[in-house]
Amino acid sequence: MNKEDIKKVVLAYSGGLDTSIIISWLKENYDCEVIAVVGNVGQEEELEGLEDKAIASGASKIYIEDLIDEFVDDYVFETLKAGAKYEGRYLLGTAFARPVIAKRLVEIAHEENADAIVHGCTGKGNDQVRFELTVKAFDPDMPVIAPWRTWEIKSREDEIEYAKARNIPLPMEKDEFYSEDRNIWHISHEGLDLEYPDTEPNYDKVLKLSVSPEKAPDKPTYVTIRFDKGVPVAVNGEYMKGSDIIRYLNKVGGENGIGIDDIVENRLVGMKVRGVYENAGGRILYTAHEILESLTLDRDTMHYKDKVAVEFASLVYNGLWFSTLREALSAFVNKTQETVTGDVKLKLYKGNVINAGVTSPYTLYDEEYATFGEDGVYDQTDSQGFVNLYALPIKVQAMMKKKVKAKKEQEKKEQGK
Amino acid sequence: MNKEDIKKVVLAYSGGLDTSIIISWLKENYDCEVIAVVGNVGQEEELEGLEDKAIASGASKIYIEDLIDEFVDDYVFETLKAGAKYEGRYLLGTAFARPVIAKRLVEIAHEENADAIVHGCTGKGNDQVRFELTVKAFDPDMPVIAPWRTWEIKSREDEIEYAKARNIPLPMEKDEFYSEDRNIWHISHEGLDLEYPDTEPNYDKVLKLSVSPEKAPDKPTYVTIRFDKGVPVAVNGEYMKGSDIIRYLNKVGGENGIGIDDIVENRLVGMKVRGVYENAGGRILYTAHEILESLTLDRDTMHYKDKVAVEFASLVYNGLWFSTLREALSAFVNKTQETVTGDVKLKLYKGNVINAGVTSPYTLYDEEYATFGEDGVYDQTDSQGFVNLYALPIKVQAMMKKKVKAKKEQEKKEQGK
Amino acid sequence: MNKEDIKKVVLAYSGGLDTSIIISWLKENYDCEVIAVVGNVGQEEELEGLEDKAIASGASKIYIEDLIDEFVDDYVFETLKAGAKYEGRYLLGTAFARPVIAKRLVEIAHEENADAIVHGCTGKGNDQVRFELTVKAFDPDMPVIAPWRTWEIKSREDEIEYAKARNIPLPMEKDEFYSEDRNIWHISHEGLDLEYPDTEPNYDKVLKLSVSPEKAPDKPTYVTIRFDKGVPVAVNGEYMKGSDIIRYLNKVGGENGIGIDDIVENRLVGMKVRGVYENAGGRILYTAHEILESLTLDRDTMHYKDKVAVEFASLVYNGLWFSTLREALSAFVNKTQETVTGDVKLKLYKGNVINAGVTSPYTLYDEEYATFGEDGVYDQTDSQGFVNLYALPIKVQAMMKKKVKAKKEQEKKEQGK
Amino acid sequence: MNKEDIKKVVLAYSGGLDTSIIISWLKENYDCEVIAVVGNVGQEEELEGLEDKAIASGASKIYIEDLIDEFVDDYVFETLKAGAKYEGRYLLGTAFARPVIAKRLVEIAHEENADAIVHGCTGKGNDQVRFELTVKAFDPDMPVIAPWRTWEIKSREDEIEYAKARNIPLPMEKDEFYSEDRNIWHISHEGLDLEYPDTEPNYDKVLKLSVSPEKAPDKPTYVTIRFDKGVPVAVNGEYMKGSDIIRYLNKVGGENGIGIDDIVENRLVGMKVRGVYENAGGRILYTAHEILESLTLDRDTMHYKDKVAVEFASLVYNGLWFSTLREALSAFVNKTQETVTGDVKLKLYKGNVINAGVTSPYTLYDEEYATFGEDGVYDQTDSQGFVNLYALPIKVQAMMKKKVKAKKEQEKKEQGK
Repeated sequence: MNKEDIKKVVLAYSGGLDTSIIISWLKENYDCEVIAVVGNVGQEEELEGLEDKAIASGASKIYIEDLIDEFVDDYVFETLKAGAKYEGRYLLGTAFARPVIAKRLVEIAHEENADAIVHGCTGKGNDQVRFELTVKAFDPDMPVIAPWRTWEIKSREDEIEYAKARNIPLPMEKDEFYSEDRNIWHISHEGLDLEYPDTEPNYDKVLKLSVSPEKAPDKPTYVTIRFDKGVPVAVNGEYMKGSDIIRYLNKVGGENGIGIDDIVENRLVGMKVRGVYENAGGRILYTAHEILESLTLDRDTMHYKDKVAVEFASLVYNGLWFSTLREALSAFVNKTQETVTGDVKLKLYKGNVINAGVTSPYTLYDEEYATFGEDGVYDQTDSQGFVNLYALPIKVQAMMKKKVKAKKEQEKKEQGK
Repeated sequence: MNKEDIKKVVLAYSGGLDTSIIISWLKENYDCEVIAVVGNVGQEEELEGLEDKAIASGASKIYIEDLIDEFVDDYVFETLKAGAKYEGRYLLGTAFARPVIAKRLVEIAHEENADAIVHGCTGKGNDQVRFELTVKAFDPDMPVIAPWRTWEIKSREDEIEYAKARNIPLPMEKDEFYSEDRNIWHISHEGLDLEYPDTEPNYDKVLKLSVSPEKAPDKPTYVTIRFDKGVPVAVNGEYMKGSDIIRYLNKVGGENGIGIDDIVENRLVGMKVRGVYENAGGRILYTAHEILESLTLDRDTMHYKDKVAVEFASLVYNGLWFSTLREALSAFVNKTQETVTGDVKLKLYKGNVINAGVTSPYTLYDEEYATFGEDGVYDQTDSQGFVNLYALPIKVQAMMKKKVKAKKEQEKKEQGK
Repeated sequence: MNKEDIKKVVLAYSGGLDTSIIISWLKENYDCEVIAVVGNVGQEEELEGLEDKAIASGASKIYIEDLIDEFVDDYVFETLKAGAKYEGRYLLGTAFARPVIAKRLVEIAHEENADAIVHGCTGKGNDQVRFELTVKAFDPDMPVIAPWRTWEIKSREDEIEYAKARNIPLPMEKDEFYSEDRNIWHISHEGLDLEYPDTEPNYDKVLKLSVSPEKAPDKPTYVTIRFDKGVPVAVNGEYMKGSDIIRYLNKVGGENGIGIDDIVENRLVGMKVRGVYENAGGRILYTAHEILESLTLDRDTMHYKDKVAVEFASLVYNGLWFSTLREALSAFVNKTQETVTGDVKLKLYKGNVINAGVTSPYTLYDEEYATFGEDGVYDQTDSQGFVNLYALPIKVQAMMKKKVKAKKEQEKKEQGK
Repeated sequence: MNKEDIKKVVLAYSGGLDTSIIISWLKENYDCEVIAVVGNVGQEEELEGLEDKAIASGASKIYIEDLIDEFVDDYVFETLKAGAKYEGRYLLGTAFARPVIAKRLVEIAHEENADAIVHGCTGKGNDQVRFELTVKAFDPDMPVIAPWRTWEIKSREDEIEYAKARNIPLPMEKDEFYSEDRNIWHISHEGLDLEYPDTEPNYDKVLKLSVSPEKAPDKPTYVTIRFDKGVPVAVNGEYMKGSDIIRYLNKVGGENGIGIDDIVENRLVGMKVRGVYENAGGRILYTAHEILESLTLDRDTMHYKDKVAVEFASLVYNGLWFSTLREALSAFVNKTQETVTGDVKLKLYKGNVINAGVTSPYTLYDEEYATFGEDGVYDQTDSQGFVNLYALPIKVQAMMKKKVKAKKEQEKKEQGK
């Protein structure tokens, strides 16, 4: 791609200082039209006044796309069904928000006949990868411009200086702030004192959506979540769309100190990073889903699915949402979810999500089989044969060792003569 | 094995009604000498007066074996290092207590020239498998007698009747009781109302070691655990042996409502069962170990080890402790633990185990690499090339799809002519 | 089940001595009507005169079911797509023939209102498991009678004696014969000298379908196989149904000494067994399919699918065809096969199946990317950044080790003062 | 790193045109002393006259290091024990030759106080990664110079022109040649017509070590290989060191057309490449090792090890030899090899490696267990119980489905009223 061929670009725009500066930088460096695109995935407060701001910063046009329900239904719940948690903990909130936005960017770039797509991700994180993999999946020939990897701005201070020199309005901000990413599913916090894993986070300063367990009420809250084929469809008996379920659970979960994770995780780009996540609704939904699966999935399927979940999580984390492997794993997952239907009651109490009872028409648990009395399903005399055959490889190995040992002793004895 | 060849047997004895009756039944049915063996793995209250009781019940001799430290050092911590949790939750307390006892049974049977080993496990559970696999691993030709699978006693009522008819003293018991298994690592509870997974447990009735989060103190407790190569060696700066670490953590953990698990799990013998576990110390140690590994293991090792942990847990759960595969997986695990050394501080608060800071001389996290400023380790311009090559398979697939699509459109056009 | 409730049974009948005797034994022991069912899965010579034979042996009725195409399309090719080979070699010929037959047995049992299903598998093999798991999957309450596990007949000699005493006609047979299982996909051979793994098989005596490589022609034969979404659809440009493709490839493959496997395998029931397999067509199709996938699957998908294949093979081998996990794995596999379309040319020569050229409209190999000249897809300067970030975890670990070493040396020095 | 700080470099030197030019280029561009290092891993013909050539090209010094036995014992056989084959086929010959050489390069660089290490790998292949990962593992701060990724020479033609302009002697070569890599374990061939996977290779032109099966003798050759704990130690009864075993087997294997692989493989750097490999000795050793393991490993260990092998192969292929994960996997593997001791007889015949008998003192196969007669190890009546419990999850699922169906029908009926 030659600089002079870039006449029009589509920019993933947030309204923050970073992307405001990028508009200015693009116009200076490429002399091109800039179309700003905001993908609304539930980041809340940041959407107001964006149009004016974008135009003021030099954009010719702005798209504000409501992607919330697509995000929840096609990405969040697809991952929830898989039970995928990166490194056993992280619910992937930032990871799958990138492909849904990048996919829309490509669509708009095509509609607008744009010559390139621009994002404001730094060169140290995972998001650049997630963005660009999605762009390449939908348009392998679309150029991507990532100013942070190439420009001379290297720090917050450089940014402010750059902005001041060009009269780009600076946001009113506290002296210090965490680097945050928010959407309907989660908020992540990085930076400042969080960069020191030997230090306990000051949760009063960090948390936005939730309170810490200590500040949560002394009385528990109960919620009942209904799943249909692995997908949450109702809360406390009331059917609602997925995004509303998450909103509701974020609220009650946040109030009860649920879903705060303090993690050192391994980035795709090879370094470790420490972050604090708020995942109130997510933690509740994952827990409920796991409880329901413990009742409705048979052992072999559950154990294999646990391994699939690990792979699924890595793919999503690494930006490979739009890959054959992720789609094939989803085909596996969806097959397993056909009977993951039922109600899970949970007690939320000061950071705890406690199983308070689960039912399913497809339950594979039956107290008749599990009780200690007599029954027709399980015949105790079967277990003798089962144990004998199950143990056969162990027995054969032990017999072999005995034979080898006896032979060696025999040889020793004969040599001793 | 012929009945008449059984002159002397070694019995896994607990002092409970089950094994007391078994002594009587063995003498009636085999006319054999019965040697009672109690393996002390920390079941606490049940050891007093056992000798008299066993002799009174008809045993010729009793061994009371202190296996606690062997259990902790060679089984519990070996599994902790692996991070193995069955079905993502269960810390395997009962599962690895069986092999340590069964191994000692075989040793005593050899010392005593016994003709068979007897256990009191039912035919519906996992423990029969765990016992017998271990026996076969150490002596493939040793007969095993499992009265519950063959005798006419089928229920609690049958037992009581049988005991009364023979003047076997009945334990003083409440009308109802949960089926429990206790050792230094955990207590499990099954039966009664727990058989109904739609019902929340009455924790006041169930719990023995811990209080529920609601009853825990309003102030958090902090503990700092030191690990050396994956093994806990000190608490709050004080070095102590493993069993004492567990005892201490069970106490403070139990007081703070930690480690209560309510699980529907898949038994080896094909049915699901619901149990409540108390694992105060175990939960604290697992959490601490995971936090330390997040700092000291590289990504590839950690991700693969997560899969190994799943296999390890299944093997232990299924009684395959003494198997080549378990030993080979331990060899893998031990190699990974060489740098899992350091201190983890935890805040215990009403059921929560919260990371309060971690340090290690072998940390792979370095705030210098992770910060957003400039540094020598990470060069942002590298990421352009990284992303391009990482994305290459996605790009090639997208190019292929584009080409196929273009060809199809071309063919359609030509057909249209 | 009570003996007297068994008025009518459905028997998996082969016409061999075993199942002829079973008819007689069933009538003697259960006084029941016996309906013989032959599932034709391509066992060839054994079908003629079966009706007369069954009636003469005492059956009231016989079903001869042509299951060949169902077998090939729904079982064989489903497994081929998965690339599943048990223990890396065995193409599962016997394993997936059992469920297709057992499924039909249940259907007929339902049509006939039979009270039980009877099979002639011994208690030492895998087939009893495969039969009974399928029966239970389709009718969990249907009793199964397995005479070999319970009757007093324990050997070939017992059988002959039993048959003579009841005038059951004995087959004309050589003094010795291998235990064989044949269907359209394969022939297996076990027993006699094959029981000694230290001995090379006498292939002239063993082989039925194929010649040994030494006896194959000196000129190679070429075949071209077309796949559509992973399924073979044409040979040498001629479209034909799956069973005809296998028949053709068995013929040319067998003539060229292809697909003879001599394996010690691990049975589900815990013992090892040695068998020789003839899989001429199967080996050709698996090889062709693998070659085509090497061109059309991306790396991540291929590598993961290789692991899925291992699990798939174990499930099929262990009789778990009709299980949620097998079906979910097939959902995964089918998603991956969407682009496994193309032509594979193979040279068959004295036991060798040699790649002689492969093409696909969905090829991900492009000589443009792979050549050493310049091109637009791959930019060599990207690799610097790729290597640097890919190596980052290694670098960080090495830096940590250096730091730890330096610190230790420093401490030593200070102690030395 | 600044150019001017580079006073002395260590170069991985082969004597070919590429690395001869690099010496000249280094001196022109860095004005530095160049120390040439040749790691002899069995590349044969290329070693003679190297010293003169290197000095003539401008090197100040040359190291010719005999790494053959280290390569065989610590890399090749370590991988053989793991059974690792990349993508099921490739025996990793080039992949593990890179770390052994790079490790020595770092050692020499330290001895010589060199300022950088230089290699001649292109930016399109795996070898650059393998080299640089090893360098970083042993010295994270050592700069690496990779001229092919940065200089202006982009093709064979450019190279020749560059050499002519500087009087660098050109090798006498046929007009066309394949890109080859040779060591004691294998030869790889890439390029020219091999870049077209639709074309059968002209093996007469390609092969160096082996003949094609068609050209192999009409009489088979037998070899017997003895393994001790997974490592080959003797051939035909004669003990010899590992490298001599490989040399011998390369010879007889090559004569019999063994080990020719034609593969499209997935490179780490994201593209597919087609190569032909000659692996005569390797193929024989892998086959023998697998046969011996089929006798001496229990099922669970074997099946898990098969998965470990896939991971091991990827790590080696991707240059991660010196990584914690590879070392931990080796610890696993070595534990499994303790009983992989015995003799394997093989028939080599026109490309076929045929099992001709295997024995081991640690055999887990015993014809006594496997035969069809009666015996004491296996009791057929056990299988009834085994099948019943093994099938229990299937049965419970089927019962659940039946119940759900019945309930639905009942509801329908009631609605119909």
